[in-house]
Amino acid sequence: MSKLRRSERIVDLTQYFISHPHTLIPLSLFAERFQSAKSSISEDIDIVQEMFKQRGIGELITLAGAAGGVKFIPKISKEEAEDSIITICKELSHKERLLPGGYLYMSDIIGNPNRLRQIGRMFASYFAHEAIDAVLTVETKGIPLAHATANYLNVPVVIVRRDAKITEGSVVSINYLSGSSKRMQTMFLARRALKENSNVLIIDDFMKVGGTIKGLIGLLKEFNANLKGIGVLVETDGADERLVENYVSLAKLVHVNEKDEMVDVQLGNYFERGKYNEVNLNK
Amino acid sequence: MSKLRRSERIVDLTQYFISHPHTLIPLSLFAERFQSAKSSISEDIDIVQEMFKQRGIGELITLAGAAGGVKFIPKISKEEAEDSIITICKELSHKERLLPGGYLYMSDIIGNPNRLRQIGRMFASYFAHEAIDAVLTVETKGIPLAHATANYLNVPVVIVRRDAKITEGSVVSINYLSGSSKRMQTMFLARRALKENSNVLIIDDFMKVGGTIKGLIGLLKEFNANLKGIGVLVETDGADERLVENYVSLAKLVHVNEKDEMVDVQLGNYFERGKYNEVNLNK
Repeated sequence: MSKLRRSERIVDLTQYFISHPHTLIPLSLFAERFQSAKSSISEDIDIVQEMFKQRGIGELITLAGAAGGVKFIPKISKEEAEDSIITICKELSHKERLLPGGYLYMSDIIGNPNRLRQIGRMFASYFAHEAIDAVLTVETKGIPLAHATANYLNVPVVIVRRDAKITEGSVVSINYLSGSSKRMQTMFLARRALKENSNVLIIDDFMKVGGTIKGLIGLLKEFNANLKGIGVLVETDGADERLVENYVSLAKLVHVNEKDEMVDVQLGNYFERGKYNEVNLNK
Repeated sequence: MSKLRRSERIVDLTQYFISHPHTLIPLSLFAERFQSAKSSISEDIDIVQEMFKQRGIGELITLAGAAGGVKFIPKISKEEAEDSIITICKELSHKERLLPGGYLYMSDIIGNPNRLRQIGRMFASYFAHEAIDAVLTVETKGIPLAHATANYLNVPVVIVRRDAKITEGSVVSINYLSGSSKRMQTMFLARRALKENSNVLIIDDFMKVGGTIKGLIGLLKEFNANLKGIGVLVETDGADERLVENYVSLAKLVHVNEKDEMVDVQLGNYFERGKYNEVNLNK
């Protein structure tokens, strides 16, 4: 292949970093790919780094030494996260979502590729430095959210099942009390699905009292895994006795009035939790 | 913001296209973003286009006129698809996957972010010009594959459930005969999940006789939707009476011998179906 010009190298560097998040890439890979000196490539990377920073799409971290290289850590700017969360809160507030019993239809939001990418970026950005090894979720609606997050963290998703399946092999089961219905339920995780001592991020779509997530935490103990964080798309406000602490939520379902067809959704605690200030929901 | 240099514009163009696949982006968006003339931006885009082509990561299609713009269509090169499918076939052949009854444990492959990205790119590349409106799948293991594909096609995923859930609202159900077990089963899809006349791509993890996929096709009829394609990760070879035609598979499970712990996995029909030739599994 002929030697590439700077502008061409920069296209390739940019696409390569974005397609390989949280992956240490040795400079020699690019030196070979481009037939260029490492010094030129370092200059290219500085340009990419600067634009990534300006656009808030992430950082490039350079590690020196023989085992060194460059790692792309996807992030999201405060402005973009704000826009995304506000969009989601507004969409969740549509009265057409109201289902009998005060439930909300959310499958369209969880199915939307743009929303999912943004949700994934937000959670991945928030937990970027927690050395996550795996994202854990429970079927069914948590799965797209978990995968969107894991895609940016570049870690596997581990799916807890509601039934023991023959295609999962030997499973570990746990009984837990569903927080809202106070019913005893069971969850199953394949024995081989999670390595010992893994650092785990739990992602789910909805949290009321937190019974399901408490069940997932119990399951982590069975695998000697470490809980590094909890992210939920929607929490409900004012749940009497929350079973789970230290979670991050994007949206908060404050009030549902079936009779008047009113749904009140506010920002979750994503911005409160130390990283951002002064978010304006009325923007 | 100050005016950007070409190399900086190229970083931003590249990341923007990759984050917005199958989306028509008016040149005026970039002109404003960069404070640059459209003619300069057109030259930038030519450079990006050329590298994308060289790396086989996709095409930029330019539509002229007032409603025009540029659209990034993700693709995958034959070499990269070949490498990915061979890797998957080899992984599927490990005897450690064998479960009682001749089933294969596949959750690790379906959970792996790199495999998923490549699987998504392969299906999205194959069906890039079918004007897909939605990807349909059935819980649980099809969901990650469907989302990986939909992410590159930039369309929503619609999940068919095995049980009717209160959080889905009004549902349409269909009874179908599971091809292998010959048992009658039922699937459910929320009435509001799929618009009339949608062009639908079905994605699933595993196809034996094709009973489940035939059920999904029946469900599409209830929604007056159009079947535009079927993609499966693994098909089994020699299923007596295949219920489904015109599917694309990445891998083919040819033979399982529980006694001798042998799993024989070959390439699926992805390369046969007109687009590629001379693929060497022994590479």
